[in-house]
Amino acid sequence: MKNVNRYDIWEYTVSGPDKGNPFRDEWIRLSVKGRNEEREVDGFYDGDGRYTVRFMPSFEGKYSFSISASFLNEEISGEFVALPAQKNNHGPVRTANTFALAHDDGTRHISLGTTCYVWELQSDELIEQTFETLEKSPFNKIRFCIFPKHYVYNLHEPRSYPYCGTPMDSSVLTKQNFNDYKGMAEGNCWDFYRFNPEHFRHIESCVKRLMDMEIQADIILFHPYDRWGFSLMSPEEDLFYIDYVVARLASFSNVWWSLANEYDLMNKSDAEWCAIAEEICKKDAYRHMRSIHNCRSIYDFNRPWCTHCSIQRNETYLTVENTDNWRQRYKKPVVLDEICYEGDIEFGWGNITGEEMTRRFWETALRGGFPGHGETMTGHDDILWWSHGGKLYGESPARIEFLSRILQQVPGNGLQLDDSMRSDELRSVPAERTYRGKFYLFYYSFMRPGSRLFHIDETTDFDVYVLDTWNMTQDYAGCYKGEFRVELPKRQYMAIMLKAR
Amino acid sequence: MKNVNRYDIWEYTVSGPDKGNPFRDEWIRLSVKGRNEEREVDGFYDGDGRYTVRFMPSFEGKYSFSISASFLNEEISGEFVALPAQKNNHGPVRTANTFALAHDDGTRHISLGTTCYVWELQSDELIEQTFETLEKSPFNKIRFCIFPKHYVYNLHEPRSYPYCGTPMDSSVLTKQNFNDYKGMAEGNCWDFYRFNPEHFRHIESCVKRLMDMEIQADIILFHPYDRWGFSLMSPEEDLFYIDYVVARLASFSNVWWSLANEYDLMNKSDAEWCAIAEEICKKDAYRHMRSIHNCRSIYDFNRPWCTHCSIQRNETYLTVENTDNWRQRYKKPVVLDEICYEGDIEFGWGNITGEEMTRRFWETALRGGFPGHGETMTGHDDILWWSHGGKLYGESPARIEFLSRILQQVPGNGLQLDDSMRSDELRSVPAERTYRGKFYLFYYSFMRPGSRLFHIDETTDFDVYVLDTWNMTQDYAGCYKGEFRVELPKRQYMAIMLKAR
Repeated sequence: MKNVNRYDIWEYTVSGPDKGNPFRDEWIRLSVKGRNEEREVDGFYDGDGRYTVRFMPSFEGKYSFSISASFLNEEISGEFVALPAQKNNHGPVRTANTFALAHDDGTRHISLGTTCYVWELQSDELIEQTFETLEKSPFNKIRFCIFPKHYVYNLHEPRSYPYCGTPMDSSVLTKQNFNDYKGMAEGNCWDFYRFNPEHFRHIESCVKRLMDMEIQADIILFHPYDRWGFSLMSPEEDLFYIDYVVARLASFSNVWWSLANEYDLMNKSDAEWCAIAEEICKKDAYRHMRSIHNCRSIYDFNRPWCTHCSIQRNETYLTVENTDNWRQRYKKPVVLDEICYEGDIEFGWGNITGEEMTRRFWETALRGGFPGHGETMTGHDDILWWSHGGKLYGESPARIEFLSRILQQVPGNGLQLDDSMRSDELRSVPAERTYRGKFYLFYYSFMRPGSRLFHIDETTDFDVYVLDTWNMTQDYAGCYKGEFRVELPKRQYMAIMLKAR
Repeated sequence: MKNVNRYDIWEYTVSGPDKGNPFRDEWIRLSVKGRNEEREVDGFYDGDGRYTVRFMPSFEGKYSFSISASFLNEEISGEFVALPAQKNNHGPVRTANTFALAHDDGTRHISLGTTCYVWELQSDELIEQTFETLEKSPFNKIRFCIFPKHYVYNLHEPRSYPYCGTPMDSSVLTKQNFNDYKGMAEGNCWDFYRFNPEHFRHIESCVKRLMDMEIQADIILFHPYDRWGFSLMSPEEDLFYIDYVVARLASFSNVWWSLANEYDLMNKSDAEWCAIAEEICKKDAYRHMRSIHNCRSIYDFNRPWCTHCSIQRNETYLTVENTDNWRQRYKKPVVLDEICYEGDIEFGWGNITGEEMTRRFWETALRGGFPGHGETMTGHDDILWWSHGGKLYGESPARIEFLSRILQQVPGNGLQLDDSMRSDELRSVPAERTYRGKFYLFYYSFMRPGSRLFHIDETTDFDVYVLDTWNMTQDYAGCYKGEFRVELPKRQYMAIMLKAR
């Protein structure tokens, strides 16, 4: 019997009927038992009479399993061994210490995400280019959709569809009229109880490659930018879809569940969103990260099913500066998935500078949150990273890489925020932030002080470093104790790092 | 009998007793009667047995007057003629149309202020330099104090004191210890009922020169940055001081009254502030602009005595973006006197860039407010414009001059804001703002759209101009009608101006 590495995917396929509608009429289930865990997970129909079950062991050691199915007279059973995890797989990301993130094996996870909504539904060439870009990038999480996207710059057909059927004729679409086709447009013909396995196999191959690159796949289950009607399915069809996606993808250690992108632009009731969340909680044996993303009104992340905040900025000016307030309100990790895009398109959400994107990353990270990047640069055949992936042209990714290197130097499980401050103060204090313990980072944002005076205590020797977060330099300024003044070059985007000896 | 120009100062001096304390023991009063106005104003003791009354005619024509005094057996009376105003004097600034400002003669006033707290108490050379700088600057209002200032960079003695007496020995002061001497320090010896006329004569000569330059003198009556005890006088002493200042200065057409700088850092009760305001309302026959300036908590400008809002930003990030909200809350002109200083000092309030200062000016002006400039650039012998005047080294004044030229092109009495928007929307809408009527200004702030689409109406021909608010260019982009797209250079700080033909 084939063995598996811890946190990797153990898979078993059985032949069965391919008549009727196996997706709806048949079922297959796996039950697994190891010394430290016992799981019951649904399998799924993969087409051509193939029925597959998958399992991700969270522990090393011997496992016994048994498979039952609607079409099997007797259970299939056996054993396999979970070997040590491969060094690049630390298991699913979890909440750690209220506000931080860590992998299942305890390794700290500093989430620095990006967004490419339907990168995996583009051509093979473009997908390869996206992987190459991600390989060189600082990003360890990417948000993307299972359903294709219909929006400005997103009018062409996807490489495949999630359901069997035929789409509307998209030759009628223009940059001017595409909004008239929002939602369930005429001419679409889908069977929402008959999936297209090829569509999901392809997405799984992308998720697996991300997994090998140690990049989290933040999977967006629903979104409103639709002309095919996938955003307007019935509650039953929604749950049928959720069961299939979870059965296929939950065993990938790098999966996060994002119930929606801009949930508040969809016409689902709060009860429907909760039913979807409940279904995921019930079917996902591995308890992957779960959240939901807003357009205008931020979701109530106090809901027990939310493992973290997933926030799009909903003000033109203030955004990342609210990180502290969201921490205090929700007492969960704050992930700011969308803080505008470095770009030059006409829309206000898509034309900030690299300096401003970098500033927002530092503000978020130093306030104890996890920022998300995006890019909408025109002039490259209407291929925008934001939706299609491809290449990055902006100035912020290199600076985010520098930020990542600085955050690696933070001891313990991330920056310890000074929670003695009242939340209404937090937004208004200078961007400089203090952290308890032996490590301090002060960030000066858009300001440009000529110097700063410090007085942490009388006795500790601090190695002082001046960081230029834009020019990406870390200069040693000497070792100081008691009251000391650090000179700064009177430029924006400087920071000071203190490390106790 | 000497005549006078409308809005200029008619003055009459009488000899009287110089024994005892004439400031407290004697009084002199002027009553004036013209066809359109009738006024009773207090005069003041100017030292050396000289008692002076002053009057500013708001109308042309013949006036009769009579002077009575505690030491005169009979009234002195006579006549004079108010001739047409000199072309550079349009009279006191008033509130016009709720949110706008206009001079007494109806001339629109677009307030673009600056702050030099004690520029007029510096050396003659430095004062001359300040006048030269103001002459070339776009600023038409300057905020400054009657009392000297004690603060970092402000430890030396002023050129004179408002009271007879002797100050503490300031040789003990250092950059480190100056805060220990805040308020009423040991060693000061003043008679708060005996003014130093020379101090006031000098300030008047400065106010007069500002008047000839068409610059408003926003006079700060109280402030907390004090080592002499002027901030800790009794309520009676405060009112005695107010009466003297009003008697001397109210007849200068360019005077504004600022009750305090950072009132909330002083230990006066609300009742005491109201009593001071009431005294000014009673004694100032010309109803000059009246307001009060905050540090942390903004004053309630709904108070009837406040003619306008005088606001210092009290958040690190959001500030000018609140202009609309303050307009809607107070229904009075919104003057943002302090929105941080272009500079490089260590304090968060004093180290923003020229770009950010310019952005804040545009945001304020396009939201229908009146922004205030300040500069704290080091490296010039500790002479900072913020407090001492002198020279300007920053990049924003030239851009403020450009903004001023653009605002001159606005027809009518200032930009007509779209008040159909709810105030909670206003802060979050893109910085671009629309104005009713035939003139539109759209500002893109820190964003850098590659183009913008417009559709004002079907019939109006608009001359379209692309403004680069940083590089100070106004380029004609052509005449358009109906729906049209304007290309932009994908840089920050751009604006678009539409003028109906």
